Amino acid sequence: MSLEIRKATDEDFDSIWEIFHHIAQIGESYIYPADTTYKEAYKIWMVDTTPYVAVLDGEIVGTYLIRQNKVGRGSHVCNAAYMVHHDYRKQKIGQAMCEDSLVEAKKQGYQAMQFNIVVSTNHKAVALWMKMGFEVVGTIPKAFDHEKLGLVDAYIMHRFL
Amino acid sequence: MSLEIRKATDEDFDSIWEIFHHIAQIGESYIYPADTTYKEAYKIWMVDTTPYVAVLDGEIVGTYLIRQNKVGRGSHVCNAAYMVHHDYRKQKIGQAMCEDSLVEAKKQGYQAMQFNIVVSTNHKAVALWMKMGFEVVGTIPKAFDHEKLGLVDAYIMHRFL
Repeated sequence: MSLEIRKATDEDFDSIWEIFHHIAQIGESYIYPADTTYKEAYKIWMVDTTPYVAVLDGEIVGTYLIRQNKVGRGSHVCNAAYMVHHDYRKQKIGQAMCEDSLVEAKKQGYQAMQFNIVVSTNHKAVALWMKMGFEVVGTIPKAFDHEKLGLVDAYIMHRFL
Repeated sequence: MSLEIRKATDEDFDSIWEIFHHIAQIGESYIYPADTTYKEAYKIWMVDTTPYVAVLDGEIVGTYLIRQNKVGRGSHVCNAAYMVHHDYRKQKIGQAMCEDSLVEAKKQGYQAMQFNIVVSTNHKAVALWMKMGFEVVGTIPKAFDHEKLGLVDAYIMHRFL
């Protein structure tokens, strides 16, 4: 598999936006509303984060970011987020990005990684994070307004690095 | 009890800062580091929030805020934070502010309130939130770097409005 994962640059953002925008339209896995703009997405994904891209045969097929989960006395814990291009699902790109992120986050000095709002009905993601060593440490009832299902529970998932 | 709770204005911020700064110095209940500046505190407490103050006989003795916990598909849940002036503890000012915040948050259209990082060793706060109808819905191991105790667990607490 010729998948390369590297830090993202501003030049990558048009490709990242294509992925981000599609996922926001679907409304089943991320909080970002369907009408999130290019500029807002840039701020979310590229500012005060370390963004990465997954490149397969020259195409950007996925992106992830690492950022502080909280400032100050919570800053030893990072948050990460992953998006795979809809044409490249089921190719373990999410898994490859997660594996990479665990190494990168540790390099950056973080002691743990936390996901704050994993949609409970996103079974494939939940299963992948558990395979990657994350545990469900909390369940927030009706925390996510799913495009098709309405209000569904969200999990908080965590692992030490 | 002549406690008045009202929306905060910019003119109140010097008093809010005195409370905030003291709590940041102690480092036992909030993530904000001891060296948080006046300007940073203003941004945290007054921008993109609805801030309130509790006034006792003309003195600002406490402050709280309500804000969106997440954008978009998580925006029906709010977050709130409360600080009581150290000279006015044990006078149920925190409880009065929490009661007020539950009413105000509902007025603002929120469906639930979530606390993201309640320090597990802050027993009085945990007990008060439980009395106010919140439940511990998650425990993040070693999520808070306590000034005296080092890394301690943090709770996620939640209630519907």
